[in-house]
Amino acid sequence: MIKKYYLLSPGPTPVPETVLAKGALPIIHHRTKEFSDLFMEMTEGMKYVFQTKNDVYTLTSSGTGAMETAVTNLLSKGDKAIVVNGGKFGERWAQICNVYGVEVVEIKIEWGEVLSPSKLEEVLKDNPETKAVFTQLSETSTGVVYDVKGFAEVVSKTDAVLVVDGISGLGATPCPMDEWGVNVLLTGSQKSLMIPPGLAFISFDDKAWKLVETSNLPKYYFDMKKAKKSIGKRTTPYTPAVSLVYQQLEALKIIKEQTIDGIIEHHRILGDATRAAVKAIGLELFAKAPGNILTSVKTPEGIDGKELVNIMQKKYSAYISGAQDPMKGKFFRIAHLGYMGGFDVIIAISALEMVLADLGFNVELGKGVAAAENVLRREWK
Amino acid sequence: MIKKYYLLSPGPTPVPETVLAKGALPIIHHRTKEFSDLFMEMTEGMKYVFQTKNDVYTLTSSGTGAMETAVTNLLSKGDKAIVVNGGKFGERWAQICNVYGVEVVEIKIEWGEVLSPSKLEEVLKDNPETKAVFTQLSETSTGVVYDVKGFAEVVSKTDAVLVVDGISGLGATPCPMDEWGVNVLLTGSQKSLMIPPGLAFISFDDKAWKLVETSNLPKYYFDMKKAKKSIGKRTTPYTPAVSLVYQQLEALKIIKEQTIDGIIEHHRILGDATRAAVKAIGLELFAKAPGNILTSVKTPEGIDGKELVNIMQKKYSAYISGAQDPMKGKFFRIAHLGYMGGFDVIIAISALEMVLADLGFNVELGKGVAAAENVLRREWK
Repeated sequence: MIKKYYLLSPGPTPVPETVLAKGALPIIHHRTKEFSDLFMEMTEGMKYVFQTKNDVYTLTSSGTGAMETAVTNLLSKGDKAIVVNGGKFGERWAQICNVYGVEVVEIKIEWGEVLSPSKLEEVLKDNPETKAVFTQLSETSTGVVYDVKGFAEVVSKTDAVLVVDGISGLGATPCPMDEWGVNVLLTGSQKSLMIPPGLAFISFDDKAWKLVETSNLPKYYFDMKKAKKSIGKRTTPYTPAVSLVYQQLEALKIIKEQTIDGIIEHHRILGDATRAAVKAIGLELFAKAPGNILTSVKTPEGIDGKELVNIMQKKYSAYISGAQDPMKGKFFRIAHLGYMGGFDVIIAISALEMVLADLGFNVELGKGVAAAENVLRREWK
Repeated sequence: MIKKYYLLSPGPTPVPETVLAKGALPIIHHRTKEFSDLFMEMTEGMKYVFQTKNDVYTLTSSGTGAMETAVTNLLSKGDKAIVVNGGKFGERWAQICNVYGVEVVEIKIEWGEVLSPSKLEEVLKDNPETKAVFTQLSETSTGVVYDVKGFAEVVSKTDAVLVVDGISGLGATPCPMDEWGVNVLLTGSQKSLMIPPGLAFISFDDKAWKLVETSNLPKYYFDMKKAKKSIGKRTTPYTPAVSLVYQQLEALKIIKEQTIDGIIEHHRILGDATRAAVKAIGLELFAKAPGNILTSVKTPEGIDGKELVNIMQKKYSAYISGAQDPMKGKFFRIAHLGYMGGFDVIIAISALEMVLADLGFNVELGKGVAAAENVLRREWK
């Protein structure tokens, strides 16, 4: 049988055909006016996505590169930072800080749980010398969306800056940088930005720039002072991924056409449809505050969660994601992120129904799909 | 909302991404050894698809060009031909014959009905001077697949040749040219061959070539004697669509990998899943002998068939086909042809369920999808 490949993971996400085609255009030199014009047009577009008047810097790296950029450009050796750790990517903030000798106050949250702003406020009070608070917008490993607006309110009352990893969340769930007072916001290209992996974006407000000025952690490729000088000359310090810039420009056309609010609403509908379907099948959600990005679903009793993901991928070519260590097998993740539409939800749920039947789970075929259809046909304009 | 475009029509059909990418390769000159090598490799591949030892000629035209090629190269002014007319494309055979002054004996069949070989045998007996019998393998306007094997048996006992339009059928339903004794077989590129529209293929056996030698109907671009000379020199008489040749070569890789029997079985499974779903929804099939290519479904009482297709396309971006004149609105056609997989069936059925609900038809959402899932999960290897 011919099998089509369905990427249903929370990144990389599917890339629109019109965007893929731009990757086949000839590479022009990056130190030319022609490229500068394209690059600055993309930069302006990213400011729209970030909802900010600050500059947005383009890094040729994965999102993790932008996380490291935030740490090494804001802090100095021995500085204290608070890390919100509710999953794999919260953990990553702590790892990066540790590598650079930053003192970490970890707020450990159970996977799937949220953190209240008042709890963060308490920890900040206990650690008045905190320079930065690192958090995710969406914790990709669980699908939880944090109350970043609430975090920003409590952090703004202190000398610390709030650094938000919006890698899977930005463009799918609200995070207007300036309005909410997020000091540093960063994201990656292979999520809601609808292009292949390879670019990351980061923006600093004035409060954050003050920290950048005094930071003494070592950095070279990710040095933001160099980036700031370069952007004044409409360029980047080092060679950017030229074809990814073409692609990002093309994807931004779609985002602008839909508007940022429209794109977020799109994700909200897909999330609602997915969750309605999962519940109709009789499964339980894993995350306490599931967001627009992905739906994590508890593996039902008696089913091998790793086997479930394996059959989804191998037999049905539906590439959902399993849970990461140490929760492997305990739940699985269905993304509804980026260039996915209503029928991607239908495919995911249909594949899930079939896999559950294959594994002997008592599932009524079509029941989950029907629940998703009910949401989609009501909301689909 | 972001809407993806789902081509669910019986041609053009979706093109695999690996095939699309070949269309972006530089155009090399067609009068070079390099191109000849590619062209002859494609020709060999097409012989595999046709299941023939005869040469297969490549035309840069739509399938209709190949139909005209058959008529003008086989017949002479005033010759008599039998046309099996059970739909839009049977009608087309008659129109082409009429334009060229060929005397047509039309066997008119109700749309959706089949023709028994014994009935064809009778008409041949009544018209012993018949030079050619023109038929479809799959009548795309209704989804009916004819008994071409049976037709070939009765035609082989006469001096006439059997000309089979395999445009939508070849590669999706069996039609081994040599084994069945089909004298002329032709097809188009935008169906089961999985490339964009623009190429057509035609093959003649020895009995047919004898007619070509004496045919006096006017032709220039489609002159097969010129094509025969050219293929001896590993080329075409006129400029071929170079990038489509690249793409056809790439698509042939998929066909060879799956094998011709495997591809036909793939289509059979998709057809079974679609029909199971349609019946589960409570709708009726239109064709008496539905094949692997498409499923035509009667518009249920009280529903506007044109509106149904319109909402499928506009609201859900699911491009199924309506019925053609004079049956417009009376039924609609869901294709399962070419580069479509199990989830394309799920999408079509899910969209259909939602449209029926939108139109106030008493449909139990998910019921059709469940029936399709039952077939797919059993048959999906």
